[in-house]
Amino acid sequence: MAGLQVCSVLVTGANRGIGLGLVRHFLEMLNPPGWVFAACRDPKGQRAQVRLGWDAVVSDPSSIKAAAARVGEHLGDSGLNLLINNAGIVKLNSLDTETLEDMTQVYTTNTVGPLLLGQAFLPLLKKAAQGSQGSVLSCSKAAIINMSSHGGSITSSFGWDQLQVISYRCSKAALNMLTKCQSLGYRQHGVLCVALHPGWVQTDMGPPVTVDASVGGMLKVLSSLSEKDTGTFLDWEGKVVPW
Amino acid sequence: MAGLQVCSVLVTGANRGIGLGLVRHFLEMLNPPGWVFAACRDPKGQRAQVRLGWDAVVSDPSSIKAAAARVGEHLGDSGLNLLINNAGIVKLNSLDTETLEDMTQVYTTNTVGPLLLGQAFLPLLKKAAQGSQGSVLSCSKAAIINMSSHGGSITSSFGWDQLQVISYRCSKAALNMLTKCQSLGYRQHGVLCVALHPGWVQTDMGPPVTVDASVGGMLKVLSSLSEKDTGTFLDWEGKVVPW
Repeated sequence: MAGLQVCSVLVTGANRGIGLGLVRHFLEMLNPPGWVFAACRDPKGQRAQVRLGWDAVVSDPSSIKAAAARVGEHLGDSGLNLLINNAGIVKLNSLDTETLEDMTQVYTTNTVGPLLLGQAFLPLLKKAAQGSQGSVLSCSKAAIINMSSHGGSITSSFGWDQLQVISYRCSKAALNMLTKCQSLGYRQHGVLCVALHPGWVQTDMGPPVTVDASVGGMLKVLSSLSEKDTGTFLDWEGKVVPW
Repeated sequence: MAGLQVCSVLVTGANRGIGLGLVRHFLEMLNPPGWVFAACRDPKGQRAQVRLGWDAVVSDPSSIKAAAARVGEHLGDSGLNLLINNAGIVKLNSLDTETLEDMTQVYTTNTVGPLLLGQAFLPLLKKAAQGSQGSVLSCSKAAIINMSSHGGSITSSFGWDQLQVISYRCSKAALNMLTKCQSLGYRQHGVLCVALHPGWVQTDMGPPVTVDASVGGMLKVLSSLSEKDTGTFLDWEGKVVPW
């Protein structure tokens, strides 16, 4: 993990699960980032345990713009190296019980949120890219990491027999498309864009991998990302996940 | 095309472009379906040129349920063979100009609509499947065809340099995921589900293939679909499109 040297990082959905794990790992690094912005919906709420609370609703454009302005004030002349779009929700519906309301709500948070955050923080990401040496894309320079899911892989339909969660799967497939679009659009600005599957983590959503193992694995993956990886979909061990 | 013998078909977005072309081709067949339901938002509007107008807003659950009930009354004891989810919209935004509103509106029409239509017409599709001979899936038995787009292929990012249309691409990637989910969930009911790319057709949206050639090609593809094709993404000539 020696390779992951970032001056500033922002993590959304940072009050629990993977988001909280990411923030903790960043703060416990030997060379921690100078700035760790932990964005969550209710930073003073019971479940917000992080040191840096940051009020941001990822589906509210004005809330996002305000957060970007405040982050910009803190950073001053330096930009933001790493935007981790981790905030996400799931609704436990099946193909029969899925609704317009849940489809819309899940899409807004899981897909539209990362689009709006990318737009709002692009000036700060560009600033970081311009201020860093070398032209090769990397997370130390400037990157957007979208937390996706194997469940969003159309090819594998992972876990279908356990959880149909149509709204979730559709939102993550769309997020993968957004990641591809961001990688095509933001490459010229020196911003690397990747979709990551964190493993099936022991959060509110389910079993296997521990948050610690997942986050540790993902940070190792982030430290290894370069030019060839932008626009790809990788798991927490660095393996390619099919679209 | 001798193979495509359907007793009943419903096409959404039937007042223009590909939807209208599909309805015309069905009505001009040597053995036309007994029922061609042409659903569109404003059947009495200036642009509605089809013989059978059917009022249905694909993003309004109550409108869809009402349409399904009326179609059911017409069909009586027989079910619906073929549901073609063709209605779709596009907003000409780029990565920089895309908005929450357009993301939501395009997703609602292009992705949530086909989900809700599938749910509402499932009883009629099941009835058709039960009433047909043999157990092999086909469009003559019961099928849902979702009109997708090569632009929704995450792998190819077709046409990126001409049109970024983020909301459209994300909605079609999500529609492809929905198609896969429908194929997994509805197979047990004897319903075949496929995503189709109509080619870049000369409608309001753009150039190359004529509507006639596209529709003719797609109907030939539909006539050839069987068991092995459910859950796939094919173009108007029957070639597999990568997710």
